[in-house]
Amino acid sequence: MSADTSTRPGPAADAAELVGAVTEALNRFFATRREIVAQLGPVFVDASEALQDFVLRGGKRTRPAFAWTGWLGAGGDPEGPQASAVLHACAALELVQACALIHDDIIDSSRTRRGFPTVHVDFETRHTAREWGGDAGHFGISVGILIGDLALAWADDMVAAARLDPAARARFTPVWAAMRTEVLGGQLLDIHGEAGADDSVESAMRVNRYKTASYTIERPLHLGAALADADPPLITAYRTFGTDIGLAFQLRDDLLGVFGDPAVTGKPSGDDLREGKRTVLIAEALRRADATDPAAAALLRERLGTDLTSDEVDRLREVITGLGAVDDVERRITELTEQGLAALAGCSATPAAKRRLEAMARAATRRVA
Amino acid sequence: MSADTSTRPGPAADAAELVGAVTEALNRFFATRREIVAQLGPVFVDASEALQDFVLRGGKRTRPAFAWTGWLGAGGDPEGPQASAVLHACAALELVQACALIHDDIIDSSRTRRGFPTVHVDFETRHTAREWGGDAGHFGISVGILIGDLALAWADDMVAAARLDPAARARFTPVWAAMRTEVLGGQLLDIHGEAGADDSVESAMRVNRYKTASYTIERPLHLGAALADADPPLITAYRTFGTDIGLAFQLRDDLLGVFGDPAVTGKPSGDDLREGKRTVLIAEALRRADATDPAAAALLRERLGTDLTSDEVDRLREVITGLGAVDDVERRITELTEQGLAALAGCSATPAAKRRLEAMARAATRRVA
Repeated sequence: MSADTSTRPGPAADAAELVGAVTEALNRFFATRREIVAQLGPVFVDASEALQDFVLRGGKRTRPAFAWTGWLGAGGDPEGPQASAVLHACAALELVQACALIHDDIIDSSRTRRGFPTVHVDFETRHTAREWGGDAGHFGISVGILIGDLALAWADDMVAAARLDPAARARFTPVWAAMRTEVLGGQLLDIHGEAGADDSVESAMRVNRYKTASYTIERPLHLGAALADADPPLITAYRTFGTDIGLAFQLRDDLLGVFGDPAVTGKPSGDDLREGKRTVLIAEALRRADATDPAAAALLRERLGTDLTSDEVDRLREVITGLGAVDDVERRITELTEQGLAALAGCSATPAAKRRLEAMARAATRRVA
Repeated sequence: MSADTSTRPGPAADAAELVGAVTEALNRFFATRREIVAQLGPVFVDASEALQDFVLRGGKRTRPAFAWTGWLGAGGDPEGPQASAVLHACAALELVQACALIHDDIIDSSRTRRGFPTVHVDFETRHTAREWGGDAGHFGISVGILIGDLALAWADDMVAAARLDPAARARFTPVWAAMRTEVLGGQLLDIHGEAGADDSVESAMRVNRYKTASYTIERPLHLGAALADADPPLITAYRTFGTDIGLAFQLRDDLLGVFGDPAVTGKPSGDDLREGKRTVLIAEALRRADATDPAAAALLRERLGTDLTSDEVDRLREVITGLGAVDDVERRITELTEQGLAALAGCSATPAAKRRLEAMARAATRRVA
């Protein structure tokens, strides 16, 4: 952890440098695609560049950071011969994430992300500007589907090209497979939840587990541990920590989606209420209202997911708070965070990795509104 | 090739048995997903079953058949220790194909495939039947995107689980990567072509090359050859054969899309004209019309892709034939087929594999209307 990376080029050992190292690894990977991309012609060059731009705009590199820190914490040597391969495998998580986001934006009909048009909207706009035939919106969605597929295929190609030693690769593969299945499963559960197929607390927790906790923290840490050939108790501890902190993070995000300060969250105040998102907070409010307050239950079911005025947003917030749902979620966040940190504290990870993971956990779960 | 597979269980050595063996391999793979699928809950069980049903309905197993035959032809031993691993890796092509078809059906707004509702239409129908909230069509598309993604991720998982020996796996990986990039690139070129971004013959040939020839024949054969560690001249011959026969097959398909007998093709007569598909046939007709017959060019540009009556379909067919485009395409088919078969005849593949590949080539490119 104290490696002097400023004078010695190589995979970054600290958080700030990791972002740069991940970007570099991604750029190197895209450079290796250049030949096949050019062969396919200018249309494909454009698509590949759109994907590269999208991936490079991703800021925090959360998943590679957890994977890399998990590897360091399990004894990975940032100056050792496997470090570069591990870094490239960790960076490939950003391509899985690109697929997830590009397809999610189609599913959520989102028009902007990170201050830029989403990929499908970008291509819709190109279609319109060039006066091509057919429906511009459908064209944009079609291109977005294919670019997302490309990101998913290239994620694997990037892992394959990372040159992990065969034993590390064999340990990595089943965790990677589980992670991808879980995130796709989580997304499927999520859209079923939003369609109203199931508005239980249990269902919302399951979406959080698979769409967020497992995909964002648990499995990246697990991947890092697998690469380092960590012993089973450390893997168990990482996974407990990752699941608990990931769930707490999502619950915090749910609270911010309803009560957050737009200046902090970057989203309109009460956005989740207008979208009718089926979060644990909302599920818990509905559960309590169904048990004790039929008028509140009716109000919530009638108004959630509609075009609310700011007075109505305030009214729904009061109802949700009055039902005790906010206190319940805060209690869950505290419990999960404590449990997760306890698992971390008791495990055999290096002290430096523990400190960094604890800081990442606190940042992900703290109140900011 | 003469192995008595009726008394000796093991990977099938002949074409009819291969279909059964591929189905069995796919079923075995789906069985290994059962645990993680169940963990994700009933919604995901439904999605996974929809994918399995879709994959199992695929009939001819064209891509696994080319890959397997390529492996046999390069000296692969159907009774040898690697045969089962090779068969599983070949069968995984059907999961890539499932992703391609499921996403293609969304892109083409197709409502049926193989006599069943397409995946997105199936889930649209479930949404409507269960009176869920939101837009049923958008819900169906969202589920279709995610199930296609799952197929693409599982294709890799199936290759990883096939237990190829590490050297074979290392030879397989770059070909697999190229194949996926090429088919996604071919699809991207195709939708740009349909939007009218480019209606040249060259562009249509490039779509055929990547979306069909490379993905359906060239790369599957190449994968089989790579698994068998074939020498470079055999790989070159396979790739020439695969590209030429694949292109000839697509050109035959283009002719059938305009002139085919609905009883044989299973599609309404003249369907490609109503859809305005930008095939080589149409590109060639337009090129000739632009050079010699402005009235025909205007007619084609105006009427292609519109809701044509059967008289209009007949009229357009006459125009296309009169321009010499059909003769041109027939000539290309003949040339490509001869070239491809010559490459096959001169290569070092086993006589049995050559016979089978020649039969497959003739079946794919012959006139049936």
